Amino acid sequence: MRIAVDALGGDNAPQEIVAGALAAARRLPGVEILLVGEPGAVEPLLERAPGNVSLRPSGGAVRMDEEPAAALRSRPDASVAVAARLVRSGEADALFSAGNTGAAVAASLLYIGRIGGCRRPAIATVLPFSHPTLLLDVGATVSCRAQDLLNFAILGSVFARRYLETEGAPRVGLLNVGEEPGKGHDLAREAHRLLAASPQVEFAGNVEGRDLGSGRADVVVTDGFTGNAVLKTAEGVARECLRLVREALLGSLAGRVAALAARPRLLAVRDRVDPENYGGSFLLGVRGAVVIGHGNSTARGVENALAGIARAGGGLVAELEATLARQRAASGREGA
Amino acid sequence: MRIAVDALGGDNAPQEIVAGALAAARRLPGVEILLVGEPGAVEPLLERAPGNVSLRPSGGAVRMDEEPAAALRSRPDASVAVAARLVRSGEADALFSAGNTGAAVAASLLYIGRIGGCRRPAIATVLPFSHPTLLLDVGATVSCRAQDLLNFAILGSVFARRYLETEGAPRVGLLNVGEEPGKGHDLAREAHRLLAASPQVEFAGNVEGRDLGSGRADVVVTDGFTGNAVLKTAEGVARECLRLVREALLGSLAGRVAALAARPRLLAVRDRVDPENYGGSFLLGVRGAVVIGHGNSTARGVENALAGIARAGGGLVAELEATLARQRAASGREGA
Repeated sequence: MRIAVDALGGDNAPQEIVAGALAAARRLPGVEILLVGEPGAVEPLLERAPGNVSLRPSGGAVRMDEEPAAALRSRPDASVAVAARLVRSGEADALFSAGNTGAAVAASLLYIGRIGGCRRPAIATVLPFSHPTLLLDVGATVSCRAQDLLNFAILGSVFARRYLETEGAPRVGLLNVGEEPGKGHDLAREAHRLLAASPQVEFAGNVEGRDLGSGRADVVVTDGFTGNAVLKTAEGVARECLRLVREALLGSLAGRVAALAARPRLLAVRDRVDPENYGGSFLLGVRGAVVIGHGNSTARGVENALAGIARAGGGLVAELEATLARQRAASGREGA
Repeated sequence: MRIAVDALGGDNAPQEIVAGALAAARRLPGVEILLVGEPGAVEPLLERAPGNVSLRPSGGAVRMDEEPAAALRSRPDASVAVAARLVRSGEADALFSAGNTGAAVAASLLYIGRIGGCRRPAIATVLPFSHPTLLLDVGATVSCRAQDLLNFAILGSVFARRYLETEGAPRVGLLNVGEEPGKGHDLAREAHRLLAASPQVEFAGNVEGRDLGSGRADVVVTDGFTGNAVLKTAEGVARECLRLVREALLGSLAGRVAALAARPRLLAVRDRVDPENYGGSFLLGVRGAVVIGHGNSTARGVENALAGIARAGGGLVAELEATLARQRAASGREGA
């Protein structure tokens, strides 16, 4: 597994990105890491780099506030673009960037290209509940057709079995406003019909927002607009709840003593919902393993993200393509 | 203020509904409560009812698992239908039901009718963050047009000023996948344009899921599909977080001592996010104050919901109609 890493993308680039990449390279000697960035910025950080790390020169980063398509047009040597072209040319199997999300998606579509039969890609992210749940799409495709949601279900199933190591076929839920098949808008009703008919999907029916993480489904599919709202709401509510508990405990002397006594276990709760455990979200539907890190990724998040690619990314594209092709064959038979 | 209460709707009906109604009647002597239900089920609970409570006979309830429109067609004497007709006839100003949500919405549309200029209604609910935030629509209208979202913004503004008692005009945010005006699908982009141009709305721009409760907006508008997913996700995540903290504290002796010491403050956190504080969601856009209680409402939730109607419901419909009419006049001028 060879991973092209956008060394310049993210709030803490290049220091934390490079530090995480070096840590991953040491932990995973079978993985080759291609750090992509301006040599002047990256080279000084590579003094004690292990042998499975190399530098690939590029121009600067696409900044967080830039319009992705315009930035890629005017600066085709931007770090994320050079990294994506390493995947296209076959020099790398995977791409990691913690920079501008839109730029990573656009560079992947432009240079790496889509998997056959997949009109639009999806960003898949793990919600760190007691029962970890893969949610997709969380923002790559804000306007979806029902067929897109079926594709997302197939992409998510193949990926979750590898990444979450589910036993047997992952159960896929459709995010909806109620459990009954007739619920929701036209898109949800049509997607329900396609999912129920697909031999490639272990369909668990409609799930509601409150079922996320309940174990009713391992994978939950929805359009990128709703998924983005749900993901960010979950992050915001988790942060607010932990803040309220913290305030409650620290607001009195008894509480402060209490918090001290329970500190290791409370920190374990915080760590459990820490996005850095996974370190990034997978862009599924393109011809490479593409992972988008959090903008504020630290070395730990980068290291975990690269380890996740090494664990789940080998042969991923071939398996996704084969499964989508089987679905197309099945739909053809059904339509015939 | 006269409130028709569906005494048979909800998991704990009629006992908890009637108990909550009686408590509200005692607390609010200026409010008249019309309990609607089968006399055989309700009358025995009214032994010590105060003088401002009366019984209006009806048939049975629409059950939670019934298809609302079909149930109302076949049983026009269902309790929620009789209660809605009391609003239409002017015998009541408001309706409360903790029963089948779809039936309450359908009965309101069928018997009470919509406010002029309001194509579709919205269910508005308060998210109990440190900065309470009114979210609408959370499920009445799963397929929206941009004009619907503008109407929701106006309905939500008028209502939030009364219900949340905001200082000055409430700031309205549009739920979207990013802050910039060009973000999102066609619906979000067009709604952004209408909201920015409306003199009736204090528009705060796009807000993301993680901004809910941050104070950036007092009111957040979105379509009923996304709003429903966001609301239920928030409820699920809050429950999961508090459960994890509870487990963390109770899992060791030190933690149990700690939890005991901090118990009053931890209970305060739980109470702060308790849906029963508000007791229900307002259906805005119909010609009456209609409140939909949680299915598992207890007497406390019912009492709080009825107190909320008394506080915010007087003259609400007239003010909503007048504000929507001003918006139509402004749009007409703009279009001319």
